Amino acid sequence: MSNNSNDIIFIGKKPLMTYVTSTIVQLATKPIVTIKARGLTTAIAIDVAQLVIRRTKPAFEISNVSIGSESLVSSDGRNRDVSTIDISIKRTVG
Amino acid sequence: MSNNSNDIIFIGKKPLMTYVTSTIVQLATKPIVTIKARGLTTAIAIDVAQLVIRRTKPAFEISNVSIGSESLVSSDGRNRDVSTIDISIKRTVG
Repeated sequence: MSNNSNDIIFIGKKPLMTYVTSTIVQLATKPIVTIKARGLTTAIAIDVAQLVIRRTKPAFEISNVSIGSESLVSSDGRNRDVSTIDISIKRTVG
Repeated sequence: MSNNSNDIIFIGKKPLMTYVTSTIVQLATKPIVTIKARGLTTAIAIDVAQLVIRRTKPAFEISNVSIGSESLVSSDGRNRDVSTIDISIKRTVG
């Protein structure tokens, strides 16, 4: 899974702290960074967002959280709907 | 885990559809129902919300999603921070 844009972090199978670090690095230069995940990794996305906020306190805050679902073709060829989450983090104002 | 109020659905270890049904039943009489989960079940909460919306389309919509973290004492006696999600569902206006 590759990032189309640097201000989006896709959660995959790497260790949690990889995504925490990537997010903090991107936030150094981008106004908003969005953490995206689907399926069971949505739980990891929430952990990553919480760790970013806690480690950089009070520099950043959650700007928006949205959930949705996406149709994927699974390995057995059938369509499966998976849940998605997008968590946007931005610099704290003031 | 018991519900303090009928308009909150806590996600636990029951089958997914149990929570989908409970949420739809509560929405028949309550203006807003909030689905709450922590840890790995946060992914299930998103699935439940998406299924409720899809099955009752277009009657209900996501009103708000918020994430946070909670300190829990785990079985080995240590403090652990777990991520939480609250998803509010309300009747579609108009």
